[in-house]
Formats: sequence, structure tokens, C-alpha cells
Amino acid sequence: MSLIVQKYGGSSVANPERIRNVAKRIIETQRAGNRVVAVVSAMAGVTNHLIDLAKEVSVPLTPSEREMDVLLSTGEQTTIALTAMALQSLGAEAASLTGAQAGIETDGLHTKARISNISPDSVHELLNAGKIVILAGFQGKTSYGDITTLGRGGSDLTAIAMAAALDADLCQIYTDVDGVYTCDPRVVSNARKIDVISYDELLEMASSGSKVMQSRSVEFAKKFGVIFEVRSSLNHHPGTLVKEETMSMESIVIRGVSLERAQAKVTISGVSDVPGTASVIFGAVGNANLIVDMIVQNVSKTGITDISFTVHKDEVSKAVDALRPVLAELGDDVNLEATEGIAKLSVVGIGMRSHSGVAAEMFKSLSDAGINIQMISTSEIKVAVIVAEEDIDRAANVVHETFGLSKI
Amino acid sequence: MSLIVQKYGGSSVANPERIRNVAKRIIETQRAGNRVVAVVSAMAGVTNHLIDLAKEVSVPLTPSEREMDVLLSTGEQTTIALTAMALQSLGAEAASLTGAQAGIETDGLHTKARISNISPDSVHELLNAGKIVILAGFQGKTSYGDITTLGRGGSDLTAIAMAAALDADLCQIYTDVDGVYTCDPRVVSNARKIDVISYDELLEMASSGSKVMQSRSVEFAKKFGVIFEVRSSLNHHPGTLVKEETMSMESIVIRGVSLERAQAKVTISGVSDVPGTASVIFGAVGNANLIVDMIVQNVSKTGITDISFTVHKDEVSKAVDALRPVLAELGDDVNLEATEGIAKLSVVGIGMRSHSGVAAEMFKSLSDAGINIQMISTSEIKVAVIVAEEDIDRAANVVHETFGLSKI
Repeated sequence: MSLIVQKYGGSSVANPERIRNVAKRIIETQRAGNRVVAVVSAMAGVTNHLIDLAKEVSVPLTPSEREMDVLLSTGEQTTIALTAMALQSLGAEAASLTGAQAGIETDGLHTKARISNISPDSVHELLNAGKIVILAGFQGKTSYGDITTLGRGGSDLTAIAMAAALDADLCQIYTDVDGVYTCDPRVVSNARKIDVISYDELLEMASSGSKVMQSRSVEFAKKFGVIFEVRSSLNHHPGTLVKEETMSMESIVIRGVSLERAQAKVTISGVSDVPGTASVIFGAVGNANLIVDMIVQNVSKTGITDISFTVHKDEVSKAVDALRPVLAELGDDVNLEATEGIAKLSVVGIGMRSHSGVAAEMFKSLSDAGINIQMISTSEIKVAVIVAEEDIDRAANVVHETFGLSKI
Repeated sequence: MSLIVQKYGGSSVANPERIRNVAKRIIETQRAGNRVVAVVSAMAGVTNHLIDLAKEVSVPLTPSEREMDVLLSTGEQTTIALTAMALQSLGAEAASLTGAQAGIETDGLHTKARISNISPDSVHELLNAGKIVILAGFQGKTSYGDITTLGRGGSDLTAIAMAAALDADLCQIYTDVDGVYTCDPRVVSNARKIDVISYDELLEMASSGSKVMQSRSVEFAKKFGVIFEVRSSLNHHPGTLVKEETMSMESIVIRGVSLERAQAKVTISGVSDVPGTASVIFGAVGNANLIVDMIVQNVSKTGITDISFTVHKDEVSKAVDALRPVLAELGDDVNLEATEGIAKLSVVGIGMRSHSGVAAEMFKSLSDAGINIQMISTSEIKVAVIVAEEDIDRAANVVHETFGLSKI
């Protein structure tokens, strides 16, 4: 008998009717001959409601993170009880466990805790008693008993970590899409669902805008070798299987194309090319808690260079504010410029490692289509370019076509 | 420095504004030189909302009680976090604890668990660190880690039990009334707040309709000698102190008058006066989970007797249904009759023990007012009578006046 860990997100359990649908799917999985642990999130909307309450009682201050965790963890606790009840009313044996009850131990970094250990004795006990276990996602407890939450994407992480701890045969991440696509189907109409993808490819896709899952969950799965499937809770189609790369995967040069809109570029020109300039710039930006994406530094010819980086456009004014005070440290004639209206296009594939010419092929196809490339950044399995936001949809289609992603 | 345990009910914490008011009162208590543990209930309305959700997912069955406890305990957990946040935003140091975290251990009787042990190490630690402790009422955990709830009045019980476990100097039960009154002020306009009352008197008042608190909390306080004060969260008036009786209390013959409306009387006449008839009747009624209040059996002269008892009028049809099948066992010519439209009036006071004539004085005053007494029942510190419901307000005023309760 296989052990399957499933995860259902907030929209899958948004109301009693959907919870009953989830319960039916869990029962189908059990009747197919599996033992099931189902991780559930807070019902859609509940977390925001709780955050609003926290803000209302905490004027004028920010609520303490310890208490925020006590508050937010009630969201998943509500869902586990309701899901277990739904299962029972449909004739199944089920019991719920909070993160703390399931032995999910974390550090004390409230609102973004890291899992340090899992002691799933209570999960084993319930499974051995023939029950379906409904587990609260997103939460754990410290070694001294405080309630913690795992931050964004925490329920995915709970599912993958519990799958690792239980040595589960499969982990299924249910979401509202059918799986990972070669590109966003709203942009590229003949985008195709990917059957199998490696952890590294999914990580690069995620960091390039295809946010099926938070990167930390994928990294955790990679570290512990947890095979998982991203699939839809709205139908019964097979999803995308995510696992360690195999030799055969390399025959596919490009796995997919990601796009990320609403980017902005900040360029600091006239920077003295001496050691420490980058650390001054990105120290200032980092202190403002801004997430920088692509960084490009031109080769210096005259002892003076330009440094550009991209951020989400909502953060560009913060970036400029953070940089102004340090400009004087960077040179005598430094200029700071911010441009919005750009977007990022990435092609990702582990086959790139053994196939040269991918970047050149991508650049040529964009050039042939008259699309100007503003910045370039590459990793071992990714090539990313910045183009004008108005060109991004066309660029995605051109590149998707160039690499033949619509057909396998 | 004194240690005070306070309890705030659902209407006192019904919204963020009220939670902030509660926080201010807690801070006042601390600034007056006390260490404070505050027990809070779920925000008014939250529990009913959760119950509705449970019913919606559980069609057609009743939700399992284990899962009901997981669900309902989120209500208080939400309030503790919000209250701690409110305190922090007002400049106080505070931390929340769930029942499980506070070491409240119970038996496994879900939805109506009994406290079996309290290990308040975490409460002591937080108090010693100078923090105000906000404790979730109504909940605990079993020795094997399941979440339990304590049933109706559970938050009062949490406060009183925690006060006992911490050997607190005082326990304050905040409610929406100023304390315990000599009679319901809506009925007797010159009813007076009682300054001090014994556990036994409060228990008799409660069982006679003056439901300031559930009896089990008062009994628990009596058993462990916890002195508590019932007072209003809406003003700063001193409340009613509840404690073990003292010699001086006996000088007050009657402490108060309670009334209970909407009663019904069931009379079974023509019952053979042989051993076992009462057990047949009350066995049948008990099996139907009905709470019987007053029981009167007339003295038998002919081997045939009448047995009457009262129940709440909403339960009278269930009582009749439960009795019909057993009537044949009670005699050959048994008659079953149910009457609604009656109410109960009780006078309560430990001074009654040493003052004879209380019952006679009460009966005479009612007789003088032309009010007919239908049934009588007495305990050591209570005399209760059943009268027509239409007479109950007048009867309460007559008796309140007779015993001079409006003046001390």
C-alpha cells in the first residue's frame, strides 16, 4: 500500500462545498489503495481577515510576530477540523492534526520559521489505525512550545517536508492549474503542459515568474529527494511530475519559457570601478529589504562603469530612495536613472548544459522579430533577457516557437 | 505583589475596539501593582459561525466531537492573539497561551471535558519575565495531546481552575452585569447588588434561574477555595465577592430571590406506591437527556400516589414522549398530565439554617397577595415554590419586600 501526501491550497478549501469536494478526492485516493495524509491551507480569505483584525487591535503599531503566528495558525486549524468532519460525514475515518501535534518543529523565527525537525509519531499512529490524516499546513512549533508559521508557500513546504519525514511514495500539490506549462497559456495559446521537469528547472522557472510554487519548497524537495506532482484540484488530469534530473531529460534542450512583467531597471552610471562599489549599492538596496533580480555590470574601459539591476516596479521608488544617500561614495560624477515598462523573458532547460547555441538562437529569433534586448543574464540552465514590456507577449511566442515547445 | 486572574467573556471581546478596552483594563490592573493572567473567550458570534460551518461540511451527520473541539478552540486562540497584540500596542508586555500551552490537562470527553490537572510552568515563566499572560479559556488538551473543550461556561472554569493552580490572590469574572443581585432588577426595581455571597448561596441562586455563572465553575471554586468576584467590564463598580461562608454571613437570613420562567409541570397520577416507581419514571426521563428540576411526591394514603416534576416548557413534549412507553409499568389506572404556564420562585440564604420560619413567612406573604402556590420544594438554604407564570413578577416583588432585601 502506497503512502501519498496531498496538499490542497486555500482556494480548494474556500467554502464548505469545496471542502466536501476535497474530501471526495481524498477518499478516491484512499479507495485506490493508498494511505493518505492531506495537508490543507486556510480557507481563501481567512488569513486576510485575520490580518485585518490584527491591524485593528494593534494601532498604531505592527502586531508582534509571535502573536501573529498564534492568530494566523487558527486559519489552518479551522480547515483541518472541517475537512476531517467532511470526510467522516462521507463515511471515511479521519482525524486532524495541527502542525504542533504532527511534530513539526521549527526555529523561533516567527512568521517565517524554518522546519528544523519532524517527529511524526502521531501521524504514524493515526495511519496505522486506518485513518486519513488531515494536517494543518503552514505551521509548526518551537522546541519550547511556541506556535510558529512558515511564511509564504508554507503549506507546500509542510506537505513536502512531511512526505520526506514519512518517506511517502508520492507528494501531490493540488492547485488551480493543471501543472507546469511550457509557457503561460494566456500568453502562448499552444503552450503545453510539461509531464516531467527537474527540480532545478522548476526553480529557474519559478525565479523567472512561473510561480506555481515557492522556491523554498522546491529546494526542500530537491534536498530530500521528494518526488512531487503539481496538479489541478478541479479535474482528474495528470499533472507535472517534479523530480531529480535523469539522463533522458537532457534530450529536451529547453523545458519552458517564463515571463515576468512589471519590472523596472535602475542604472547607476559613472561609477568608479574600484573594489567595494557593488557592495555599497547592493548593501543599501538590501538594507531597504528590496529583492533585486537581474544585475548587470558593464566591463570598465576607463575606470568608470555602469551598474544596472532590475526590481519589481512597485519597489523602484524605494530603491532610488535607498541609493541616493550613498551615491557620493560611488564616484564624482555618478548618475542614477530608473526606467519602468520592462519585462523579463527566460528560457530554462537542463539540456542547455550539453547543447551550445541556445542563447544565440534565442537572441536571433528576437532580433528577427524586431524586439530589442535591453539586458541579458544567464545561468547554467537559463537565459534571461529584459525587453520592453509591450514586446513581452510577442517575444514569448517567438521564443516558444523557436524552440518547438508546443510539440514533443 | 498580588496575582490576579481575570476572565473576559465573549461580549467583552466582541470586536477590536472592545478588545482594546479590555487591554486597557488589564493594564490598569497591572499598574495598580498586580501580576495579571487574563482568560478570554471567543469573540461573540465566532463560535456560532464555526458551528454553522461544521454543520455545512457534515451533512447529513453530526460532526465528530474530537474535530468539533479542534474547530471551536480556534475561537479563543484568535482572541488571545488579538488581546496580546492590543496590550503590546498600548505599551504593555504580554504573551498569549492556548489551553494546551498553559498546561491545562483534561480527560478525553470531547466538547465537555473535565480538567484533570494543570501544570502552569509556562504561565509562571511568562509572569516571572514580567509579562501579562493572556490565556485561552474553554480549552485544554488530553494527556495524549488531543485538543479538548470544557463545554458551557468553560472560560469561567479555566479562570477559576488557573487561579487555584497559581494560588492567585483573586479571580475576577468580568461580565455584562454589575454582580449578583438580590433579584433580577428588571423585575424588582429596588433590587440591590449583593456585596458578598457564599458559594452555596450562589449555587442555589444559579440553580434557581440567576445564571450569572455555570454551577460547575462555582463548585470548582468552592472545592479549591478560590475567592472570586463577579463584576462588570462596562464600568469600575466593585462587584459581588463569592467565597466560603463566614459566621457573619449567617446574620443575613435571605441573600436573594431567584426566578425561573417558562417552566412546565408533568404529573403522573394513580401511581402504585411500590418501590421502584420513581426509578421507572426518572429513568425514562433521564434516558431522554431531560433535566428535571423540582420533584414532588405526595404522601400515599391508599397505596396510590401522584408524582409531579417540572421541566423547561421546551422539553415537556419530550418528557411526555419518554414516559408514555413506561406508564403501564406504574399501575393500572395511571394518568399523565402536562401543564405549562408556570414559573419558579426561590429564596436563598445560608442564614435560613439558623432562622426558622422562613418558609412560613414566604408562604404567608404570597397568600396575602392572593398568589396560589402549586408546588413546594426546599433545601437546607432554599425554599422554592411554583406559581402561575402570570404571577411571578408580583410574587418576586412581594417576597423581596417581605425579607427587606432592598435595604441593608
